[in-house]
Parts: sequence; C-alpha cells; structure tokens
Amino acid sequence: MKENVAQKLIGSHLVQGKMSPGEEIGIAIDQTLTQDATGTLVMLELEAMGLQRAKTSLSVQYVDHNLIQEDYRNADDHLFLRSASRRFGLWYSRPGNGVSHPCHQENFGKPGQTLLGSDSHTPAAGALGMLAIGAGGLEVALAIAGEPFFMRMPEIWGVRLTGRLQEWVSAKDVILEMLRRHGVAGGVGRIIEYYGPGLDALSAMDRHVIANMGAELGATSTVFPSDTEVRRFLRAWKREADWSGLVADEDADYDVNDEIDLASVEPLIAMPSSPGNVRAVREVAGEPIQQAYIGSSANPGYRDFAVAAVMTRDRVIDDRVSFDVNPTSRAQLERLVQDGHILSLLHAGARLHQAGCNGCIGMGQAPATKGISLRTVPRNFPGRSGTREDKVCLVSPETATASALCGVITDPRTLGIPYPRIADPDDPLVNRGIFVPPLAAEEAAKVVLEKGPNIATLPTFEALADTLEIPVLLKVGDDVSTDEIMPAGARVLPFRSNIPKIAEFAFEAIDSTYPERAKQTQGHAVVGGCNYGQGSSREHAALAPRFLGLRVVLAKSFARIHAQNLANFGVLALSFVDGGDYGRIEAGDTIRVAGLQKALIAGAQLTVENTTRGQAFTVSHALSHRQIEYVLQGGLICWMKARGGQP
Amino acid sequence: MKENVAQKLIGSHLVQGKMSPGEEIGIAIDQTLTQDATGTLVMLELEAMGLQRAKTSLSVQYVDHNLIQEDYRNADDHLFLRSASRRFGLWYSRPGNGVSHPCHQENFGKPGQTLLGSDSHTPAAGALGMLAIGAGGLEVALAIAGEPFFMRMPEIWGVRLTGRLQEWVSAKDVILEMLRRHGVAGGVGRIIEYYGPGLDALSAMDRHVIANMGAELGATSTVFPSDTEVRRFLRAWKREADWSGLVADEDADYDVNDEIDLASVEPLIAMPSSPGNVRAVREVAGEPIQQAYIGSSANPGYRDFAVAAVMTRDRVIDDRVSFDVNPTSRAQLERLVQDGHILSLLHAGARLHQAGCNGCIGMGQAPATKGISLRTVPRNFPGRSGTREDKVCLVSPETATASALCGVITDPRTLGIPYPRIADPDDPLVNRGIFVPPLAAEEAAKVVLEKGPNIATLPTFEALADTLEIPVLLKVGDDVSTDEIMPAGARVLPFRSNIPKIAEFAFEAIDSTYPERAKQTQGHAVVGGCNYGQGSSREHAALAPRFLGLRVVLAKSFARIHAQNLANFGVLALSFVDGGDYGRIEAGDTIRVAGLQKALIAGAQLTVENTTRGQAFTVSHALSHRQIEYVLQGGLICWMKARGGQP
Repeated sequence: MKENVAQKLIGSHLVQGKMSPGEEIGIAIDQTLTQDATGTLVMLELEAMGLQRAKTSLSVQYVDHNLIQEDYRNADDHLFLRSASRRFGLWYSRPGNGVSHPCHQENFGKPGQTLLGSDSHTPAAGALGMLAIGAGGLEVALAIAGEPFFMRMPEIWGVRLTGRLQEWVSAKDVILEMLRRHGVAGGVGRIIEYYGPGLDALSAMDRHVIANMGAELGATSTVFPSDTEVRRFLRAWKREADWSGLVADEDADYDVNDEIDLASVEPLIAMPSSPGNVRAVREVAGEPIQQAYIGSSANPGYRDFAVAAVMTRDRVIDDRVSFDVNPTSRAQLERLVQDGHILSLLHAGARLHQAGCNGCIGMGQAPATKGISLRTVPRNFPGRSGTREDKVCLVSPETATASALCGVITDPRTLGIPYPRIADPDDPLVNRGIFVPPLAAEEAAKVVLEKGPNIATLPTFEALADTLEIPVLLKVGDDVSTDEIMPAGARVLPFRSNIPKIAEFAFEAIDSTYPERAKQTQGHAVVGGCNYGQGSSREHAALAPRFLGLRVVLAKSFARIHAQNLANFGVLALSFVDGGDYGRIEAGDTIRVAGLQKALIAGAQLTVENTTRGQAFTVSHALSHRQIEYVLQGGLICWMKARGGQP
Repeated sequence: MKENVAQKLIGSHLVQGKMSPGEEIGIAIDQTLTQDATGTLVMLELEAMGLQRAKTSLSVQYVDHNLIQEDYRNADDHLFLRSASRRFGLWYSRPGNGVSHPCHQENFGKPGQTLLGSDSHTPAAGALGMLAIGAGGLEVALAIAGEPFFMRMPEIWGVRLTGRLQEWVSAKDVILEMLRRHGVAGGVGRIIEYYGPGLDALSAMDRHVIANMGAELGATSTVFPSDTEVRRFLRAWKREADWSGLVADEDADYDVNDEIDLASVEPLIAMPSSPGNVRAVREVAGEPIQQAYIGSSANPGYRDFAVAAVMTRDRVIDDRVSFDVNPTSRAQLERLVQDGHILSLLHAGARLHQAGCNGCIGMGQAPATKGISLRTVPRNFPGRSGTREDKVCLVSPETATASALCGVITDPRTLGIPYPRIADPDDPLVNRGIFVPPLAAEEAAKVVLEKGPNIATLPTFEALADTLEIPVLLKVGDDVSTDEIMPAGARVLPFRSNIPKIAEFAFEAIDSTYPERAKQTQGHAVVGGCNYGQGSSREHAALAPRFLGLRVVLAKSFARIHAQNLANFGVLALSFVDGGDYGRIEAGDTIRVAGLQKALIAGAQLTVENTTRGQAFTVSHALSHRQIEYVLQGGLICWMKARGGQP
C-alpha cells in the first residue's frame, strides 16, 4: 500500500490497534519533552510510580515558561526539575536556554521518530519529519516510563504546497491562511501533512512555524517529510548523523485534501481574540498600536529576527510602541548577537528579553489597557496576554516590525524599503554544552529530589472499593468547565506542584465550601449535566478533587479529555442512560453502587441506588479495558506501582 | 575661605540659610530625575499643582523599575509617564533604555549642577561633580515647579584616597570597605567627599559605584571633583561642552576626615541581610550559591560586565547557578554586544535580561528557598529580592562571576586566571536619539494626560488635631527599612498609583495584621528604634501608613529622607530624648500629646504621656518651621492647596 509520511510514522511505531481513522491505536514513543509549567507534576508522577530510569531513547526537561521569579517558587521549581532530571536520566535545559520547541529541533529532534510532549505546541517537531504530539502530563510520564501512547487514529489531511512566497510574506502567513480557510476546529481529529513543490522554498524553521500552529487548527499533529532541507538543517546543527529520509510514497493518498499556492498568500493578521479571526493586513492598516512583539515558538528562527533587525537598522521604533524582542533559543540569540542583528534592534529601541516563552504565555509583557498588540505568537485567546480585555493580533515578524516602526498596523509591502530576504545560517553557533546530559545510572540512583517548601509529594490513592456508599457533595449544571472545577490564574498557579494546597481552590467559583466539606468525607460523588469538564486539559481538575475524596462523577455527558483525566486519577465517570434521572438526585443524597469490579468488566451499564430516596437508575461507562484497570486500582499511578514501578 | 567641592556646590546654589552643619538651607535645583515607581505620583502631584511647564533646566522621566508587565498596570503607567513628560516639558526615557542613574550620567549629568531625584541612589551623579540628592516625590515635584530644596546643612566628610586597587579588587570593594568601617548609619547627616591621589585610577563609572552606595551609609550625598577623568568621560559621551572643572581649594577643610589606602582593600562581601554586614570574601569562601547577578546602578559600567565576560569566556556557569546579567543602560548593552562580551556571557550560560532595575528592586529574579544569591546590587535588605527569607550578599562583579563559575562563594584571586583589567571605552555607542525630548511649550499645553484605570486620584488628608490620644499599633526594632514599611516587588509595585490598594501591604513583612487594625483606628502611632525608615526613598512608605491613619512615629532616630516624607504627608516624627524610654512603651499602649500647635512652634521638645502606663517622657522633633506648617495642615499637598495651588 502506498503510504504518506504520517502513515509511515504511525505504522513504524504501532504497538496496538489498526490504522483506520477513529480506531484506538497505541504507538511507541521514542522521545519526550516536558516544560516547567507542566513538568513539575510529571516528575512527581515519575516519583510516585517508583520509576528508576527513563525508558525512552531521549527525554528532555526544559525550563522556559516560569522564568519570572517573583518569589522562591519558580526558582525552587527549576532546582527541583534539575534534580529530577538527574534522578530519572533526563536531559535538563536550564532557564535562559530558550523555548522547548526550537531548542528541541536544533539539538534533539530526529526524523522518523515519535515525540510526546506535555505542551500543546509539541507538534512543531513535525518540521523534521517526526510524529510529535502534545498530551497531558500523566501520559507523558507513562511514555517516559516506557508505555505506549494511546489515541484514536486521526484522519490524514494532505495539504499540497505549490508556488513560492512573495516578498514580505513568510511562513506565518501560510499558517494564518490555513486558519483563515478552516478556523480553529478545522484540524480536529486530523494530522496535517504538507507536501508538494512549494516545500522547496520553506526552511526547516519555516516548517516549524507552520507545524507549531497546527495546534491552533485543533490538529492532533502536523508532519512534513524529512527531505534535503531537513538534512541541511541537521548538518548545520552538527548532527547530520541523526538524519534519515522520510517522504510519502509517490501518489500516496490522504483522507482529506487541500492545496495552497504560496504565491497567492498575502500578509495576514488574526484579529482579537481568536487565531481563526484572520483578515488581510491591508484591510486593517492604520490602526494605532501600543506593542509589537517578535519571538515565541511560532516564529523562532534566526530569519524571523534577522529580517526585523534589518528592517529597523538605522531607524527608531515609534516612541509610543513597546517593541519586545523575545529570542527563542540561546543558540539563535548568540548568532543574532554575533551578526550584529541584536545591535540593530537595540539601537532602534527594542526591549531585549531573555530567551524563553515570556509574554507568549502571559509571563510579563502584558499590553496597556485598550492597546493593540501585534505579536508573532501562536495564540491570542482573550486575556492570555495578562491584560483582561486585551487586543492581541497574530502576525508575521515582517508585519510586527513594520507596524512598530510606523506606530500603526502596517502592511509591510507599503514600507517602501527593499525586502531583506534572509536564510537561516548554515553554520549556527551550536552550544550543546549548555544542556546538562543525563547522569550515569549508578550516580542517578543516588540523587535526592530537591523539593522546596511549595513542592509536595503526590498524594497516594487507594484502590476503588467494590461497593461504594457515598454522599453527593455537589450538583452542577451543564457545560461546567475545568476552569470552574480548578481555576488557573496568578493566585492559584503558583501551587501547581502542591496538590493539597491547590485543592483548596477546587470548585471555588461554584461552591467555596466544597473543599472543606469534601475533606470530612471518606469518599464522595459529584453530579453534573452535559459536557462536564469542558475546556482546558489541565489534569489538576481531576487530581485535586480526587485528592479531596472524589470517587464518582455522575453526569449527562463528559468532555473527552476530562473523562480521560478522571480515569487516569481513579475517578469513576458514569453517564445517566436516561438524562431525566439527573432530576432524581440532589446534593446531600447518598448513592450506592455495588459489585463494581465485576460490573465494570461485564459491560457498559451499572445500577446506582439513591439510598436517600430509595430509588435506583441505570448508568453507563465509556471506559476501555485499560481504563477499567486504572480506575479499579486507584488510578494510573497505582496501576504502574502495582506493576512494580517498572512498566 | 577655602572650600571643598561640596561647599562650592552648595554655595553656588544657596538661596536660603547658612552653610553651618545643622542649619536649614534652601538650594536651587538645576535638574531632576524621576523613575517610574515614584514618578507616577510625582506627575499626579504636578497635575494637582496645576503646573504649566517644568522650571528646571532639565528634568528626565525614566522608566526602569516596573518593567514586568503582568497585566495592564505597568504598561498603562509607561504611557501615562510618556504623556506627562510631553505635557510638562520633561525628557522621557522609554522602557528598555536602562536604569536612570547610569543613563543620566551618560546623557544628562553636568558638573557643578544640582540634581534632585525621587530615587535614593540619585547621589550616583556625584561621580560627575554634581550635588545629587535623593528625595521624596513630592519634593521633586516642587523642584520641577521651580521651588528650592530644603534640608539641614550636612557635615562634609572628606575621604582621602591613596594608593591603587590591586588585581581582582574594584570600586565595589571600596564602598564595601566604607560600609565595613562605618556601617549603614555612618553617613547620616553627611555628604561624603572623596579626594586625593587615589582618584586618578578610578574612572567616572567607578566613582558612580562609590557615590551610588553612599546611600547605604545613610549619607545625604556623595561628591567627587570634576577633574580630567570627568572631562574624558563627557568627551567620550560626545558632550565635552557640558564639562567644567570643579575641585576643592588646596588645603580645604572637612568637618570629618577619613582615609583609605586603596592598595589595602581586598575582595569584600556584605552578608545577609544588611549592606553593613561586611566580611572578607576569603572568610566565607566555599559556601554553595544558587544565584549570581551582575548589573544594577551599583555596578553599571561597561567594565563591570566586560570583566565578567572575559572571566566566563570559554567556560560554563555551574549548572546549579542562575547567572543573571542585567545590563544597566541601552548604550552600554549595545557596546557590550558589539565587542563580543554579551556573546561570551550567553555562551557560558548567562540569562540576559533587558536593561533596567529588574531583580535589584525585586522585579523578578528572586532566589530559591535558602539559596545564597551573590549580587552586585546596592542593597540586601531582608525580602527585597522577593524571597522572604532570602540570603542575598553584595559583592563586586569579579566575586559574583568567580562564584558563578565555581558554584560556591569564591575569592576571585583564587581562580588562577589572569586578571582582565578593562577600561571603559573612549568611544561608547552613544544613542541619544532614543530619549524623547520635551515638546515645545505650545504643543505641550495641548497634551492630555493618558490615565489607565489603575491611576487613582490622591487621597485628601485632614489637618493635625491639637491633641492626639491614639493607640500604638506597632513597635519595631532598629534599622527598619522602607522595604519593610512598604514592600516593593512585582506583587506590590503595580499598585503604586493606587494608594488605598497599596496600603494593604503596609508593614506586611513585620505584621500583616497592621493594615486591617489600622483601618479600625481614628489615628494611631508606630514606635521605632534607630535609623527608622532607612533605605529606599519611596514616599509610599509615608503615604500608605498615613492613609491608614498613622499620625505619629516615635523612634530613637530617623533616616533623613523618610523623616522628610513623613512631614510631607503630615505624619509627626518624634524622637525619644532618652533612648531608654523606648523600653517604656509597647504596642497596645495609648499615647497622648496635647497642645501640639503651640508646642511644635514653641520649641523642639514635647511631652508624650503613656496613658496606659501612667508615665510621661520627653521627645524632640527636628521639624523646620516650614515642615511644622506642613504637618499641622495635614501635609504638603494640603499646604499647597491652602496657598492656592501655585508654589
């Protein structure tokens, strides 16, 4: 059978299931990537599993998100992650090395391999011909422990590229064109695969830009072939030996097809406050701006900064505009310094920040009230910048820089200066010595995890009793989001490594008495409406209520990722077979479910008694056999432990 | 009469009083400097006065403190300060240009002139032969409005420098030697004047280091002569025309005398948590560190970074250590980039931050729990770093860098590498175009102040009652700093333009119940030890407790600027005549002072009753007639209003 690149990647890693769209498949994971915002929990999970040493061929722990140290917490986390990397045999990337995605591409990514990352932009590594997927922390922890990653086989969406980008148009405009056409849900359940003659003029870092923001289309991943450009890139980064070719078979099929003539793409802008709200820059030109911002994993390359530098040389940024330059990797920054580009940017009035995610993740650089901010970042969700009613627009470095110079949204083609067409250098300043390699196993075994006062060991959970008789503590309505179950924000996030502490905020927006009441129970249930647990994938929304004693959620229906997270942390998610039964149970009632072990395995339906009202009704579960095991044993971590910590 | 430099500076600006130590004098102010943390209030005060245009020969508004934008507040303030600069005829220095003090020295400072700044390190400009004084924002607002600055004539403390610094010893060690000898109150009521043959080997930026940290000795100011080195410096910065010579008359006298043989100074370190807690580095070598930090107004020069860069070239920072590089001016950063020094630092693993105050003022870069942090900053007061129980030590760039390389406190002389003796360049990259000059008067008059939603009207205060009978809410020890009275840092500083909100943090580090208790009173007192209100000049440390009802501070002694700020905001500062009376009053006691109006005017002594204990004791005040008026009327703003708004 003729295969495309995505099929070859999946096929070569398939350990379970069949490659038919919609079927559950398990794939072997070669590499993992964790960053600091999600990584502390991953490391605590590895500790709880009793893992001795990472079983992947390579795992890297980056520190790129929480670089603003307002108190001891972030600095403590950095030391904890360093010690966990030493303990478990991971590479450690110290703060200041840059954003995980470009760093990984420059130093670790390998064509033909799989990468699982606890960051939604992990698919950027598809630029090298990898299959790279973002997932919850616990799933990444499992992958580090050598377990396969399970998902439903996606559709493969072939996008044929032809033609060549015009002057002042770059890779960012290509992914904005995809978003203009298909919107933020256009890629759901799909892997996007780019191919065709248009690829020849897109560098590996240009492809990174496009693969990275596949996440904004909702895609499972994005892949590119591993061709001569990928070989050139790896040679430049002194690791040609890591290259292997990977291209689609001639006339390979795709489940879905699309085509972009690159020559037809013009400078585009995603207006507030969705990456899918795309317009032509020329249509909105002239609006005064307050900020322009270059950098982030969505425009990380040398070229992206060098173009801006040449544009600003001997010019001055409008004095109302904050022009924030966020280098994305230490190595790129070094070369930009060496070539005089950083000097040009500084001289023009730029604010140069340390390499990292920074303002892209709301870590500083928030715009002023009502100020329009033009950014090369991947997302402009409302408030993500830190300013609640922000006006963030997503653009190319060319558009951001032109607008910074003029003080208003500016189509860069109207600047009237020659277009600086710049290629990524063939001899970058490789600085691999700055990454700390894994310790030898014997030394690693001696390492003690370094836990500051805000880093608490994960609580241990008991197995599910065969019969549950527990009170309903809370009854909520439809569409309750994980933001309501477990809020984020600057007040709560500092406790991301401290489950007992973060649990005090559980359901705060709905019923602030919940945590205190929950602690008094020996287990309890929550009743929900439709689409329970929608929104952010944060696993704290399952873990924190579980810590407080949540054993069962009865709901009309569940959001997919949250249902997975509940199973992973040993909470039984049950759906009313008759939605009307939702009305027959109230907070304060006691429910009883008996003979769980047999019942779960026997079939999809169970009976729940409402002992307070003397009624009974039928519920169903959607758990796979694997998930039933997790739930019965008290969650994935208990399941791993039962296997001796050695999956 | 033979005059020293300080006397010449004062004499040439004297508009009131006599130059006898202790006498109140008024001096004309040529230049002012405001930064963003204090400047927003200054601008609101100028607005309240109805000022049309700055009457100084030069006033500059810098943005260097509040560079972390977690939400709209800081960015809004930057725009507000820009608009106020345009409105009132000030220069505006945009965020990213760097710290006010080195920027001012490089671009604006003028030998023979006076400079008043709303920042306690303003005396750094003494390096150019200026008389530069830090003051509360309100006094700077008055100076901008053309009013003289009033203070008590200080003693002039002549420090004769001889000899030449040895290898691995630099200007920072000289000021640490002063602190070792004299402690943090050694300079109170004095201007320190350096002279003698040792000056020849100290560059203008070396002198900046020494003048800057005169503030840590409690000195009113520090002055150096304007000699050939100052001329060289100004020539290098393309403004030799601004130079004029200013040296002491031969055999001029000083009120106090001291001498330092520079050759005898060794690498020194101020241990936690006072700049006066000085030891030899060799005595504490070997302690593991978690952070090293170069930059700040206390080590701002090209040399300070270049030495570190040469030391780290082709070496790697210990991977446990966060090595934070904080450039202090855009121009210095540009030249360091051009000369390859930034590349060396980056390659070794440094975290390069934007030019500004940053971690020095607790804006990020907080160390880890129990982590020792070696910094070239001027202050290590407890918690100023952002980490409550921090262990910040003050050192030279040489000691910080040697320790970063080794991972432990290291005397740089033991590194075993050649000492890189580096001079500041004679051809720096002058980038004056990045400062926004004042608008012409006609245009300026049309400018509307741009106020974000967090910029609140100043509260109004009532006049002082003739008899006070109020509870003592708090009793504190010696050397309580304004950092403890009114913390800075990223959590608190965003509210600097919002007094009701910022007041909630008053005395937080000492007693977090204070704000709530204070609000319950109709006025209250605080009892302090020696040197009450040392450190930063922030007027919020007077204004916020005043807003909460503070009417009287009884202390053994006061730091000069804070005493002025208390008077400016209508708080009565009273000193125990017998220090032993400090032991006869406790928190919870009620004090009574009667017939205040007459008593304050009649003389310097008053009687305070402790009605709880049935005791009475004598206190004194150091208020001038002018200040008595302020206090009686409820503060300077009330006094101004009573005069019809026009000073």
